[in-house]
Amino acid sequence: MRGYTISKDDYIRRLRRIEGQVRGLQRMVDEDTYCIDVLTQVAATTKALQSVAIGLLDEHVRHCVIEASKNGPDNADEVITEATKAIERLIRS
Amino acid sequence: MRGYTISKDDYIRRLRRIEGQVRGLQRMVDEDTYCIDVLTQVAATTKALQSVAIGLLDEHVRHCVIEASKNGPDNADEVITEATKAIERLIRS
Amino acid sequence: MRGYTISKDDYIRRLRRIEGQVRGLQRMVDEDTYCIDVLTQVAATTKALQSVAIGLLDEHVRHCVIEASKNGPDNADEVITEATKAIERLIRS
Amino acid sequence: MRGYTISKDDYIRRLRRIEGQVRGLQRMVDEDTYCIDVLTQVAATTKALQSVAIGLLDEHVRHCVIEASKNGPDNADEVITEATKAIERLIRS
Repeated sequence: MRGYTISKDDYIRRLRRIEGQVRGLQRMVDEDTYCIDVLTQVAATTKALQSVAIGLLDEHVRHCVIEASKNGPDNADEVITEATKAIERLIRS
Repeated sequence: MRGYTISKDDYIRRLRRIEGQVRGLQRMVDEDTYCIDVLTQVAATTKALQSVAIGLLDEHVRHCVIEASKNGPDNADEVITEATKAIERLIRS
Repeated sequence: MRGYTISKDDYIRRLRRIEGQVRGLQRMVDEDTYCIDVLTQVAATTKALQSVAIGLLDEHVRHCVIEASKNGPDNADEVITEATKAIERLIRS
Repeated sequence: MRGYTISKDDYIRRLRRIEGQVRGLQRMVDEDTYCIDVLTQVAATTKALQSVAIGLLDEHVRHCVIEASKNGPDNADEVITEATKAIERLIRS
């Protein structure tokens, strides 16, 4: 089970919007937009990406971790260690 | 003066690569890739975006702030306050 | 069950070290240390705090979430929603 | 010139409050407080630390960078590179 099948369309829709934001950034740089305005847009794009990440993590714990724990504690341990490392990469990025 | 005219092409190149990464994320979600792998890719994309932001900020201080300070301290004060707010948004995003 | 009872002493030890780092920051400001050096120390302290947070989260999922899931899916759902919100606050801080 | 001499007392006051927050965290762990509540307090402490960092950066640019730029562009260049690296460490922490 992959976890995010339910709202797959929603994730793709949000990622398409983010793709549009990144294309907007290219246009802004190309048109010599004032840096601070570009930076504001970069921050908004990063925030949107982090939101997608938080949603994926939530579903991961909700489905994969719970599922793994049914197959015994060792199984769950491995899945949780993996999830923690993913959270760490997100916090540090 | 806008600040980043010198390496404009470099920024656009990096943003195009980020656009590709976001498209890759859509494909990963569409193909039910394991969430942790999607999250790793989200973290990489966020890191690439933050790098662009840091580059823009560096050039902004290097050009706009120095330029503004030549037109008197009041002028520079405003530009710096604006830059600090942008840094704050980036740290919080 | 609280989750982090096992390594309680380790957390307290790490938090004491962080307390020392914060006191070091006060001294640095008081002695007019060059701002960049103070900022480097602030970044190190933040990193140490985030490490404690990641450890707590890991144990939380490992114990509380798994425990809750044994008492039925509704119970686990609530605990996971709470954990996701905590992750969100950490990523945004 | 160090930059933050004006509001030195304010920084020390804020850092003392953060020291108190870190001591509060030790007490929370010692008293087996529910992990999520500890995490909320960790996020608040991190936020307070980041605020101090943003304040220091702002004053650094306001004083040191402007000051350095008066001694010629090479001088300012070095100071700005240093500031950018500090911002990078903060964003990544």
